Amino acid sequence: MASGELSRAEALACSGCRHACHVMLFSDTNAQLFGRIPIRHIILIQMRFDGLLGFPGGLVNPSKETLEAGLSRELWEELGVAIPVSVENHVASCYAPSSSSSSSNLITHFYVKKIDEEQVMEVEKAAASTATDHGQEVLGMVRIPLYTMKGGGGLPSFLSHSFIGNCRSQLLDALLRFNLISPQELQESLVHAIKIHTRTSKDLQAFLTLTEGKRVPSLNDK
Amino acid sequence: MASGELSRAEALACSGCRHACHVMLFSDTNAQLFGRIPIRHIILIQMRFDGLLGFPGGLVNPSKETLEAGLSRELWEELGVAIPVSVENHVASCYAPSSSSSSSNLITHFYVKKIDEEQVMEVEKAAASTATDHGQEVLGMVRIPLYTMKGGGGLPSFLSHSFIGNCRSQLLDALLRFNLISPQELQESLVHAIKIHTRTSKDLQAFLTLTEGKRVPSLNDK
Repeated sequence: MASGELSRAEALACSGCRHACHVMLFSDTNAQLFGRIPIRHIILIQMRFDGLLGFPGGLVNPSKETLEAGLSRELWEELGVAIPVSVENHVASCYAPSSSSSSSNLITHFYVKKIDEEQVMEVEKAAASTATDHGQEVLGMVRIPLYTMKGGGGLPSFLSHSFIGNCRSQLLDALLRFNLISPQELQESLVHAIKIHTRTSKDLQAFLTLTEGKRVPSLNDK
Repeated sequence: MASGELSRAEALACSGCRHACHVMLFSDTNAQLFGRIPIRHIILIQMRFDGLLGFPGGLVNPSKETLEAGLSRELWEELGVAIPVSVENHVASCYAPSSSSSSSNLITHFYVKKIDEEQVMEVEKAAASTATDHGQEVLGMVRIPLYTMKGGGGLPSFLSHSFIGNCRSQLLDALLRFNLISPQELQESLVHAIKIHTRTSKDLQAFLTLTEGKRVPSLNDK
């Protein structure tokens, strides 16, 4: 959002910047949920070690390897399958709002690569079994639902989760850029997502009040 | 929270009630994240078809099968591995706040079962490949981080996601009941989770403003 977009070349010219490369892998699919809701596309995203959702990838040092070679190496560790990413898959580079105050000057490079449905399934199986990072840097691989069910189930619910850095922005940008959903669908999904998100807020506050209520008597008992 | 707890027998006596059974599968582990952060336990949860996080399981009709037989059947479909659940694994039954206005009188039955780390890995692999529900009712299986990193990464981030029904309540209850974290850790995690959750709120609002801003000019152009 508040992040400044820049070209790949401009990004690489930044001395002292840290570089993170991530990729959205997706495929087409003819599958239907419950035999009636078209799934249309399978998009892969990960649950990261820090409990946030994020695309596969990681930090790359461009003085040691190209951005794409570094990203491909990260993918191998996280997915357990070789998915080479090239300059042609590059979509955008930008200064990203950092989630921690210490990590300044981070540039995120975003790639999108279309693969076959068979490759998606190969990735899912390997990521959950043979991949080096499984259970360590990666807590699991999930598909992003693009449909919207009655009550906001599907994409709206998914968008209400917590994402790392500018990942949600990258996702929304890619959904529009590659015509995976219409601007109208996206807007309706966001409206719904905000409603679902508000429920979590009440839920968390109620739990906190409950645990605080439990703590006070035990302190008084001492 | 507002849900009333009742015994398994009381729950089964309710005529006209719908019954949902879910299980939290977990194991111990000696693994350490980055070789220094003890992971302690591996807890499995799913990304559901509706884009929300939820434990494995589903609806069971007690006039046709026992709750535990129904749950074991659901697990077979979702996990691709036979994990029999018995009455001894039953933890709580309660009227759950329903996420949709049409589905009234829902009773959720919650089970917790400890398995081996090897079984966890077997489940993860099968769930992402051979399980019937993979890519349909289940979008992926993830592990829940129990540690807290600097900045709230780990359990706090995870708790800020969106969960189905009373799933987050079931999780927090099980974490305390089985001594997987201390009440103090839980309270600190909730405080952190609320902060992380607030960031998402700003994020979603900003995106909505942006898409609305984009839509208006296109309408004026007509």
